[in-house]
Amino acid sequence: MADFTVTPYEVKGAVDYDKLIRQFGTTAIDRALLDRIQKHTGELHFMLRRGVFFSHRDFNWLLDEYEKKNPFYIYTGRGPSGKVHIGHLVPWMFCKWLQDKFDVHFMFQMSDDEKFFFKEGLDIKEATDLAYENVLDMLALGFDPKKTKVLIDTVSSGTMYKHAVRFAKKITASTVKASFGLKDSDNIGKYFYTSMQAVPAILESVWQKKNVPCLIPLGFDQDPHFRLARDVYPKLGYYKPAIIHSRFVPPLEGVSGKMSSSNKDNAIFTTDTPEEVARKVKKYAFSGGKDTIEEHRKLGGNPDIDVSFQYLAMAFEPDDRKLASIRDDYKSGKLLSGELKQILIEKINAFLKEHQRKREEARKILDSVLVKD
Amino acid sequence: MADFTVTPYEVKGAVDYDKLIRQFGTTAIDRALLDRIQKHTGELHFMLRRGVFFSHRDFNWLLDEYEKKNPFYIYTGRGPSGKVHIGHLVPWMFCKWLQDKFDVHFMFQMSDDEKFFFKEGLDIKEATDLAYENVLDMLALGFDPKKTKVLIDTVSSGTMYKHAVRFAKKITASTVKASFGLKDSDNIGKYFYTSMQAVPAILESVWQKKNVPCLIPLGFDQDPHFRLARDVYPKLGYYKPAIIHSRFVPPLEGVSGKMSSSNKDNAIFTTDTPEEVARKVKKYAFSGGKDTIEEHRKLGGNPDIDVSFQYLAMAFEPDDRKLASIRDDYKSGKLLSGELKQILIEKINAFLKEHQRKREEARKILDSVLVKD
Repeated sequence: MADFTVTPYEVKGAVDYDKLIRQFGTTAIDRALLDRIQKHTGELHFMLRRGVFFSHRDFNWLLDEYEKKNPFYIYTGRGPSGKVHIGHLVPWMFCKWLQDKFDVHFMFQMSDDEKFFFKEGLDIKEATDLAYENVLDMLALGFDPKKTKVLIDTVSSGTMYKHAVRFAKKITASTVKASFGLKDSDNIGKYFYTSMQAVPAILESVWQKKNVPCLIPLGFDQDPHFRLARDVYPKLGYYKPAIIHSRFVPPLEGVSGKMSSSNKDNAIFTTDTPEEVARKVKKYAFSGGKDTIEEHRKLGGNPDIDVSFQYLAMAFEPDDRKLASIRDDYKSGKLLSGELKQILIEKINAFLKEHQRKREEARKILDSVLVKD
Repeated sequence: MADFTVTPYEVKGAVDYDKLIRQFGTTAIDRALLDRIQKHTGELHFMLRRGVFFSHRDFNWLLDEYEKKNPFYIYTGRGPSGKVHIGHLVPWMFCKWLQDKFDVHFMFQMSDDEKFFFKEGLDIKEATDLAYENVLDMLALGFDPKKTKVLIDTVSSGTMYKHAVRFAKKITASTVKASFGLKDSDNIGKYFYTSMQAVPAILESVWQKKNVPCLIPLGFDQDPHFRLARDVYPKLGYYKPAIIHSRFVPPLEGVSGKMSSSNKDNAIFTTDTPEEVARKVKKYAFSGGKDTIEEHRKLGGNPDIDVSFQYLAMAFEPDDRKLASIRDDYKSGKLLSGELKQILIEKINAFLKEHQRKREEARKILDSVLVKD
């Protein structure tokens, strides 16, 4: 039996990604696909080189269309239930790279309705306010405002609902029960919600009045929403969206599950001060090092279970040679856990200093990219 | 066992209205309430005098509030699945009278999403187009455009969806299954829909930023939607909407069920020509008369099962004395079925002549009353 769980509403245990690919019926990203991407992008993003994005659906078809001058657009999003942490930024950074390299449009959905339906005690006003705050973190990454649209479900419903209903008519309660584990005791918002999440995957086609391929970079746990979308949209005359899946960014306490913003101390938020970042990494980041300095010098650490090393690999050290040298030094015992943590703290704080400035600047452009009717 | 069925999605059999009041737990409109209404309106609408509106929930509370200078607004609507027939006009005519007499706001919802979810083969564009056409029949009745708002669900969703989600979170799938007879094999739009139908019952409160009482005149079959609304809204800090229920306008073929626009020949549409009206009434209107003229003269007709008489009573002959004289003459055998039909044909055609003119004029004001974001 699986000792891990991956659904849109829970990620638990040590995830076996090969097993996930088999279970979900997706395709591993292989060398041939990487080469094909590189032909267009010149270089490969480190998240592709290192398998942070490791699985896909129909990416080859997407490139076929791209090569036939039928460019795609990118769609991803977030359910705003708390502050943005560095785990959230991983797929968004990748989206920004895709936008730059392929020169394509980007659509970002904030599902305040979803978080409201699924989280007890969360008020809709609170969820919408969080959406307005969270979206600044996406914009801070430098997306081209002329080629970027933001949807906040309860704010953009004038645009979204009329398409959500077409999706909803094609999906039965049985199907959403099976896909999301819903029960009769769940609220009817949860039943309907997947229809709203599906809308951005066709919205560019609606606006351009022709079929536009859509690429959805996402955490693997969100795949069930788009398996439904891929099933339904051809029946409505649209393309199936292509998908590219990322691994989960682990919580500070250990390399399993995914980083969550519900637990204040297992995540590093984009608004944390340098002192908070240092404190959290030092106190909570699970270490692959040995118990004593002597033992560590002798036996070395294990980077594969070391959260600090994983954060460098997944997000904060793009340079492969530098990363390899950190890895080697850590494995040999030359680099101590405290020193490895210090490298990460400096990387994160350097990133956040810039990010926090750009995040405030993003308030000025939010209005121009938000779909409001 | 009941030999009739009344749900929002089916009305079948000869409805026993006393039984319905007991089953649904509503309150019959009694003399005391009629007197109280008349105190404010000066006269009673014939639909109240004749029991076309026969049942209510919290109408006395509504008048308490009205007397405390906390006036109500009126909300009703329609699911646009076809052309408007004269049965639809019955509650709307009553709403127009209420607006005049109490000088209050009126909100009219066109649930194009509902009809799309529930009707196989109906496209959403078709449903929305029908909504734009159907609403002209409401406006043709002469509502004050300054005090009237129209919602078309897929057009007004920018205003509605954010409130629908608050309702949806409070309703489980079990509850909508029990209330509307939904199954796991039904689409998720049907599950969510009651949340959209509930929104107009609090929208005036949202706009005015204070609790505004709401009165919903409707056919009895729509009651389950608002039993849910009455259950949920106090939990969200709103008043329970008050309700006043009408009898069903029978189809041409007989005094049972309700007139439907799905069957072209069992309904008289507001856009029918005088010839079509005459043909349908003559050919299809179920007669309470006897088989031969001789028998009819001798034994008389039965107005209680005569559809032509019922239409006069429910909608087209406001004068009680004239109606009583028709009734007496028909019962005595003095008035033949063909003659009774002719009275109805003339009444309907006189009404429709004016109505069709006003209906076209209404196109000019639709834009100003439609809530579009």
